[in-house]
Amino acid sequence: MKRNLPAAIALMLVLGMSQTATAADPLPSWRDGRTKQAIVDFVKQVTAKGGPKFVPPADRIAVFDNDGTLWAEQPMYFQLAFVLDRVKSLAPQHPEWQEKEPFKSALAGDLAGVAAGGEKGLLELVAATHAGTTSEEFEKAVKDWLAAAKHPRFNRPYTDLVYQPMLELLVFLRANGFKTFIVSGGGVEFVRAFSEKVYGIPPEQVVGSSIKTNYEVRDGRPVIARLPAIDFIDDKAGKPVGIQKFIGRRPLMAFGNSDGDFEMLEWTTTGPGPRFGLIVHHDDAPREWAYDRESHVGRLNRGLDEAPQRGWSIASMKSDWRRVFPFEK
Amino acid sequence: MKRNLPAAIALMLVLGMSQTATAADPLPSWRDGRTKQAIVDFVKQVTAKGGPKFVPPADRIAVFDNDGTLWAEQPMYFQLAFVLDRVKSLAPQHPEWQEKEPFKSALAGDLAGVAAGGEKGLLELVAATHAGTTSEEFEKAVKDWLAAAKHPRFNRPYTDLVYQPMLELLVFLRANGFKTFIVSGGGVEFVRAFSEKVYGIPPEQVVGSSIKTNYEVRDGRPVIARLPAIDFIDDKAGKPVGIQKFIGRRPLMAFGNSDGDFEMLEWTTTGPGPRFGLIVHHDDAPREWAYDRESHVGRLNRGLDEAPQRGWSIASMKSDWRRVFPFEK
Repeated sequence: MKRNLPAAIALMLVLGMSQTATAADPLPSWRDGRTKQAIVDFVKQVTAKGGPKFVPPADRIAVFDNDGTLWAEQPMYFQLAFVLDRVKSLAPQHPEWQEKEPFKSALAGDLAGVAAGGEKGLLELVAATHAGTTSEEFEKAVKDWLAAAKHPRFNRPYTDLVYQPMLELLVFLRANGFKTFIVSGGGVEFVRAFSEKVYGIPPEQVVGSSIKTNYEVRDGRPVIARLPAIDFIDDKAGKPVGIQKFIGRRPLMAFGNSDGDFEMLEWTTTGPGPRFGLIVHHDDAPREWAYDRESHVGRLNRGLDEAPQRGWSIASMKSDWRRVFPFEK
Repeated sequence: MKRNLPAAIALMLVLGMSQTATAADPLPSWRDGRTKQAIVDFVKQVTAKGGPKFVPPADRIAVFDNDGTLWAEQPMYFQLAFVLDRVKSLAPQHPEWQEKEPFKSALAGDLAGVAAGGEKGLLELVAATHAGTTSEEFEKAVKDWLAAAKHPRFNRPYTDLVYQPMLELLVFLRANGFKTFIVSGGGVEFVRAFSEKVYGIPPEQVVGSSIKTNYEVRDGRPVIARLPAIDFIDDKAGKPVGIQKFIGRRPLMAFGNSDGDFEMLEWTTTGPGPRFGLIVHHDDAPREWAYDRESHVGRLNRGLDEAPQRGWSIASMKSDWRRVFPFEK
């Protein structure tokens, strides 16, 4: 085997060269047009050695919102579906929940009732469903749920509802020396439970909201105990704060879909040198959903108004994306 | 050029092979012995494809304490020297400090006086020297200080006081597919200001203590404002909490030097499968310092007692390290 290795390498190299020469489109699910061109041009510029806009690989940081940017967020945030299902599965140990809000509404699947409890009610649900376990137990609970739960519209696992064009974009950026991060308003441990498998993004490159934890040794076994108290909300102005806290440098590219991502896009694109911002616009009801300025989830208002003057690209699901989900033909 | 590339690759490959066969010692500043052997054996086992202890690259996480593990921490934490110098440089704008503790003691270089102020006094110093700037201004302040300040014993920049054997270890681990992280009790933004240049560890792989920050747009310019309030203390039981919060998975290897690293070593080495823990023991007064059980800085007591039964290696500076600092002959 070893004697043939140089020949094999030579062959691979030749094949590799011809592949580069007639390179397949790295973003086949993006339709040719202004948005795709803007992405490809930007990446070409910052990776052109000796070029005026060259950026060293260490500074090629790209940040992605998750809900509505990498996977769907309708009819409700998928993590909220997890909360509701988890309330149901924990209910037998909590007979008092049958008569107590917000659990009563959650058990009945009554979202309006849950919403009526306001922030206090929501925190009670988070405490009941996200705390009281170790970090390892919680990770298992999320993985078990993702393996079993089905999305109500598509009747498929939630992790099937990731956007094919964004998966291609992640691969394309990493192939060009970018480090890809998720910066999510969702719970960091919830997203970490599937980010590596689904997006190729390792847990240490996920920034998100978190609850407080505590290190304890229980009967000689160390655990990270999850506590019923909010530690950090990684949304809106919290996103640049989370980026600085976890990543420690300003990103080169940012991708979002709602006004919750506005400050992340603003912080990224007002940095010196070349910067890139993109908003995914949900305007495709037949294939996905159509919502923006008036939506209760993923509301996009200021971003739509200011994107042109700020030089942010808008990716129209309807016209820029040839395919939305990987399971589409 | 292109026509010759396969031949060149073949040549490099052959040279590479012979280099591996007669490989130079990757850890030349470590003396041959039990400690060095334990490191090399562990790395060999977890990287042996098909072997019983093989660990995929994604899970090869190695965490390093900074003060006393990667660089020196005597006669005081270097970050404390920064605090004292910064109080002096900010004093002209604060005439009231001349008569007000803990600033009066700090200005006089009176460490006992500073210590007399307890935690409250220390927090006042941190607030005065670490807050009130933007993240970018603070980074510049640290870099400027590191470029100018000299260590009192060695009369060299503080960043010269890094341990040569640990630098080699970082390179060796990365060459074997490990991702190297700093998990420091020191301020995360302080360490990030030099970690990439000095250790080859990028800011996003630095976990540390932090103060609260806020995202603000000042006259149209977004900034991360540093606030005078503690956000997170990454020490003792805080280290496993910080590891879970920032990295999101349990490390394979942990390196520390004091009881402040005990829980990090414990959390790491009680994980399933192969794990490795090592304590740097400061027992070399002529070349560095000698201190452990009774020290006010870097106190190492429980770690020394429990290392043997927990299977942690102890690196004796005196006997395991051929060279301590890069500037030594």
